[in-house]
Parts: sequence; C-alpha cells; structure tokens
Amino acid sequence: MENFTFYSPTYFIFGKDEEKQVGHYVKRFGGSKVLVHFGGGSAERSGLLNTVRCSLREQGIAFVELGGVKPNPRDGLVYQGIELCRKTGVDFILAVGGGSVIDSAKAIAAGAVYDGDFWDYYEGKVVEKALPLGTVLTISAAGSEGSGDSVITKEQGMFKRATTGEALRPKFSILDPALTQTLPSYQTACGITDIIAHLYERYLTNTQDVEVTDRLIEALLLTMIKEGPKAVADANDYQSRANIMWAGMMAHNNSCGVGRSQDWTSHNIEHELSALYDCAHGAGLAVVMPAVFTYNLNHDVMRFAKVAVRVWGCQMDFEHPEATARAGIVALREFLKSIGMPSNFAELGAKAEDIDELTHKCCYGGVNSGTTGGFVTLHEADVKAIYKLML
Amino acid sequence: MENFTFYSPTYFIFGKDEEKQVGHYVKRFGGSKVLVHFGGGSAERSGLLNTVRCSLREQGIAFVELGGVKPNPRDGLVYQGIELCRKTGVDFILAVGGGSVIDSAKAIAAGAVYDGDFWDYYEGKVVEKALPLGTVLTISAAGSEGSGDSVITKEQGMFKRATTGEALRPKFSILDPALTQTLPSYQTACGITDIIAHLYERYLTNTQDVEVTDRLIEALLLTMIKEGPKAVADANDYQSRANIMWAGMMAHNNSCGVGRSQDWTSHNIEHELSALYDCAHGAGLAVVMPAVFTYNLNHDVMRFAKVAVRVWGCQMDFEHPEATARAGIVALREFLKSIGMPSNFAELGAKAEDIDELTHKCCYGGVNSGTTGGFVTLHEADVKAIYKLML
Repeated sequence: MENFTFYSPTYFIFGKDEEKQVGHYVKRFGGSKVLVHFGGGSAERSGLLNTVRCSLREQGIAFVELGGVKPNPRDGLVYQGIELCRKTGVDFILAVGGGSVIDSAKAIAAGAVYDGDFWDYYEGKVVEKALPLGTVLTISAAGSEGSGDSVITKEQGMFKRATTGEALRPKFSILDPALTQTLPSYQTACGITDIIAHLYERYLTNTQDVEVTDRLIEALLLTMIKEGPKAVADANDYQSRANIMWAGMMAHNNSCGVGRSQDWTSHNIEHELSALYDCAHGAGLAVVMPAVFTYNLNHDVMRFAKVAVRVWGCQMDFEHPEATARAGIVALREFLKSIGMPSNFAELGAKAEDIDELTHKCCYGGVNSGTTGGFVTLHEADVKAIYKLML
Repeated sequence: MENFTFYSPTYFIFGKDEEKQVGHYVKRFGGSKVLVHFGGGSAERSGLLNTVRCSLREQGIAFVELGGVKPNPRDGLVYQGIELCRKTGVDFILAVGGGSVIDSAKAIAAGAVYDGDFWDYYEGKVVEKALPLGTVLTISAAGSEGSGDSVITKEQGMFKRATTGEALRPKFSILDPALTQTLPSYQTACGITDIIAHLYERYLTNTQDVEVTDRLIEALLLTMIKEGPKAVADANDYQSRANIMWAGMMAHNNSCGVGRSQDWTSHNIEHELSALYDCAHGAGLAVVMPAVFTYNLNHDVMRFAKVAVRVWGCQMDFEHPEATARAGIVALREFLKSIGMPSNFAELGAKAEDIDELTHKCCYGGVNSGTTGGFVTLHEADVKAIYKLML
C-alpha cells in the first residue's frame, strides 16, 4: 500500500422519504439562498421538485431554479448557472438529480467563486474553493454524491473532461432508493454498469499488497452481481435499489481505492464515445470495458484471474491461468448483456470511421499528451486497437 | 435495509512517517493550545512523542502533556485531563496512542466543555459538544480513530461503559502502520481480535436484505484472516500492518454497519471481564465470541453458515446447515488460538466464582435494565450460561 489521504466529510441521509427533510439539511450546512439545479422533466413529473420546494419554503430558505441539465452535462449551462448565482447572491447549490446534475452543480459551485473561466479547472487547475453543495440523488451510478469529482463536456469540439477537489465534496447527500424506482430499466442498467466500472478502474492496479482494498472492491462487485439484475427486472424492488445505492456511493468515494494506483483507461476511452455520440456513459462503458480488459490481460494475468475466481465464480485453471482470466471477462460481458447493455459499436450507435478521431481526442485532448491509462500506459496505436476490438 | 445517517468527516493521513506532519494538521483544524494525551512509556521510548513535540513546536503551537493512560482507561485520569484543559485554556486534544488513549481523550474533549460530570455521557446523556480532537494511532484495534465512540471504566465499582456522538469523531487521524511495528505480537493479536469482533458485532443482524454490508464485512474479515497471522509472525511486515490498519478503521467507522441492526453482545459481555480482571479487551473477546455465537447459533443458522462458507472457507452442508454454522465458529476459535489468543476463563485469568457478579453487572450495570444483546435479547440466565461456556 502507498501513503494516502482520505477525506469524505459528506453527511449521508439514506432511506425512504428522507428528501422531505432537505430544507433542514440546507439550513444545517449554512445555506440561505439556494440554487436548485436539476435535469429534465422527470424530477418535476415525479413530484420530487415540489417536495424540495416545500421543504425549502418550510425552512424559510429563498431559492432560484435552473433546470435543463442533460446527460453528459455541457459547459453552456454551467456558465448560465454561474451567472445566475452571481446575479442573485446564491450561497448554496442544491443538485436534484443524478451524476450529470451533480457534476454540473459542482462546476457551478466552483465557477461562481472563481474570477477566471471555470473550464480552467477541467484543464488541470486545482479546485480550492467552491460554494457549499448538497444533493438529492435520483440514480445510482456516478457516485458523484460522495466524491469530489465532476465531468463536463465542452460543447465546442465535444470534449469531455474531469476535475476533482476536496472543495467539491457535497456537504450532504440524500439517498432515497425509492426515488430510483421511476427509472426505466435501461437507465438502471447503465447506472449499474457505471458502478461496476468504478470498481474495475480501482481494481486494476500495479500496487502490491492491497488485500484490504481488493477485498472491498470484490465485495461491492459481488453486491452488484446479486442486486443489479433484481433492480433491472423489477423497478419497484426497493431493497435491491437500496443495496445498489450504498454500493454505488462506496464504489466511488474512494474508501476502497486508497493507497493503490488506479486505471481509468475505460473511462477515458468511453468519454470520447459519449461526448461524440451522446450515448449513455454506462452503455459506453459496457462496450469499452471488455475490450480494454482483453487488450490489457497479459499485463497481469493473475489479477484478472483473481477477479474471475473471487467475483465471477470461475474455476481456477491452475495450468492455464490465462483461460480463467479470459473467462472472467466473458462473464462480465455476459452479465452486462443480461441486464440489457450493448456489446459493440453498432449496438451503441458508434461508427468505425470515427475511430481515428476518437483515438486522437482520447490521447491528445485536454491535458493528455499522447498516452492514457494507469494500469498499462497506452499509446495511440493501442487505443486505436482497443476501439477496433469493439466493432 | 433500514433508513440511516452516516457521517465520517475525519481527515485520514495514512502511511509511513506521516506523523511528522502532525503540527500542520493541528493547525489546519484550528488548534492553538493543545493537550497531548498519551499512555505509558512506549510512545516516549520509541521517539514518537518527540516527533510530535517537534512538529508542534515547528508550527508554533503551544501544548501541555498528560500521560499515563492505561488499557481500559479510567475516569480518574479523565477528570485530571478536564481540569488541566480548563486551567490552561486548551482548545484542541491530540491523542497519541491506541484506542484507550483516544477514548480517554474523547472523554476529556467532551467533559472540558460540559458543566456537569462527564460521566453523565456514559450513563446515557447525548454528547453534543466537545473540543476538537486529532489522533496519532499506534495500534490497529479499537477503531476509535475513525469513530465517535468512547469506552471508559469507572474506578468505583469497576464499571466499563460506552458513549457515542458525532462531536467525538476526530478531526484528523494519522495512521502510520510503521508505528505499530514495535508492538509485541500478543498486543498485535489482541488488536486483530478486536477488529474481528467489530465485524461480527455488525454481521449478526436481524435486518433482511443487507447484501452490500454483509459483503463489506466479509471482505474485511477475509483481510484479517490473510494479513493477521503475517503481522503476528513478523512484527516488521509493514504491508500486512498497513492492510490491517485500514481494515481496522473501516471495520468501525460504520460504513459497513449502516442500515442494519447490530449485536454488541460480545462487547457487553467482555467489558465486564476486562473491567474486573484488567485483561486485554481483545483477549477477552477471543474467549467471549465463540461462546456467544455458539449460544445464539440457533437464532439464525443460515447467517452463521453464510459467514462459515464465505469467510472461513467451510463447505456448505446442505443437509445439515447447522454443522456448517458450527464449523465456522470452530474455525474462528482455531484462528484466534493460532495467533496466540486465549480460549477459556483459565487462560484469561478469569474465575468461575465471579460469574454471578459478572452477569449481574452486565445485565444491570449502567443504563442496562436486565437484558443485553441486539441479535438475541439475552436475560440474566442466558448471560450466565454464556459465561459458563467459557470455563
């Protein structure tokens, strides 16, 4: 294990109907003039936004609203949000939605108290200050409710870039599994896939002697394998959604990723897909992960064999560990198919002729300088080969 | 899963030599006049206290010192510490030691800003305010570095009682696995046993549909089984100590215990042993746990079978699940023996003739009113029978 710091000061309020107390928590964490940030019409239709408004009013908290966050959230709306915060004197941001809404809210929170262009933070500048932020989560996926991370897409050129910082960790997050029961099964499955990816990105490490975090990651993967299909099959299965919701937070607040190198190849390669085609991030990851893992398999056969045996229940082939390692990747792919995720470029709506562009953006976009990946350092030719494995 | 809140705002600094920065972190979290609280001579002999003093001086932070905390920390020293804080205007407590030192520091932190007798908090009063607290941990065991819990022994009558509160969570905790390398193997093993107990106390639940926390607990138990014996066999095995140290924190900050009923029978029954005989808490737990689990086995055979199969690697006996459940308890007992822990009253230095007194104190001491246990409600006759199983 390597030296590390870990700080997860978010107050989590978990369970049915807890969103009714959101005003109380905004007040507790110092909010008096709130920007309520949300996505499309579903939070309105489900009545959630009204619950939030009532609770804020009950506590005498003033608020302004900014809706319209789309999946793969854009910088355009972030600029609008920053402007609105400054104009109206907002001192607290409340994100009501999924990872896209929360990520957009984080960008606004950082940008509102920064003199320069908020995009600087997505090009490498460290976030040191932000407005305080709370969340009411509506989908288990990104883990943004418990992380200091944010991913935004720049409309000009359709680049998707990430930032991170302690100041971006929410002050509180309300996690009511019942709020996720209105999701279509496809979106539920996309969220499950994203959580699984967060776990694999941490599992694929070059650090030795990390049994505790290996085991914690495996625990969360096993949870997703048991609970995921139940939530996809029956939207109203509160208990499976509850298990997934806590697993999704734990998968990404980094308590199971500390002290070890991490990968993030699959996310980097996927980001170009969802930026270009506006496909769901989880769906993109379902196509990307098996390709990346297959390409990188020989870098550490025993690690892939370990996850195959411990998580996917494969029998260890002691004469041919590589066969076990491959069986684990097949099991992952089959699992993702079984919950309705795509397996290849065609099913995702991606095109072979874009591979050169995707590869170039992945390797040279933003702060990247020709390579990607923490587990195996991948150059342009490698990334291109990985995209081709997805055809 | 049940509704819950979870809040773990401690800043963890983990790894070799990180204690050299302790002054920086005290300053970051607002300390200007510090009480350095510690145990016996080992922190002095190892040079740790000097490292701490140097770091505080480098940052220009004034401090007073109070040593002498013993295992099973007493109220007498707590009163001294409170007095010292008030007299010298201390605004931050720094605990340098293990769970006993940290628990004593928490009691002082709460008592120093309370007009009444601090013991009120250990008789049921809720802790709402305390001085800020930091820790430099020297043994992986109690998990007090990441929890809001504290256990103190009242000298008059030798009662051991616990309290908990968000205000008692440390602002920061420095976890350097190398600091635990000077521990004798017996103390290392006691710490390992305590961590295992924290996991079992959470595992034994009556809440249904808790796969995510079941799996997380199992992950940490598996880690202890792999890494524990390595640390006991070779004091200088930094990596096994690192894995144990993070597992010990995760086992008790409650991220793996949320949303489920918990047990705490073994701790309650053990507390009377270490209060009366001043034995190591971990050693007491090693004797208590197999007895409690054997006594409670029929309450939920499948839960005991599950931990036997998933953690201890027992084969499931589908015709006789109870046999598997029992095999898991035997495996636990053998594991504890293998790391040098006692198995019965005699090895612990406890006496059969005290069982009536132990039972009475356990059931009626403090806020207890005749029963104990969250998994199975145990009355006096049950507790007595459990103590007898330890003979």
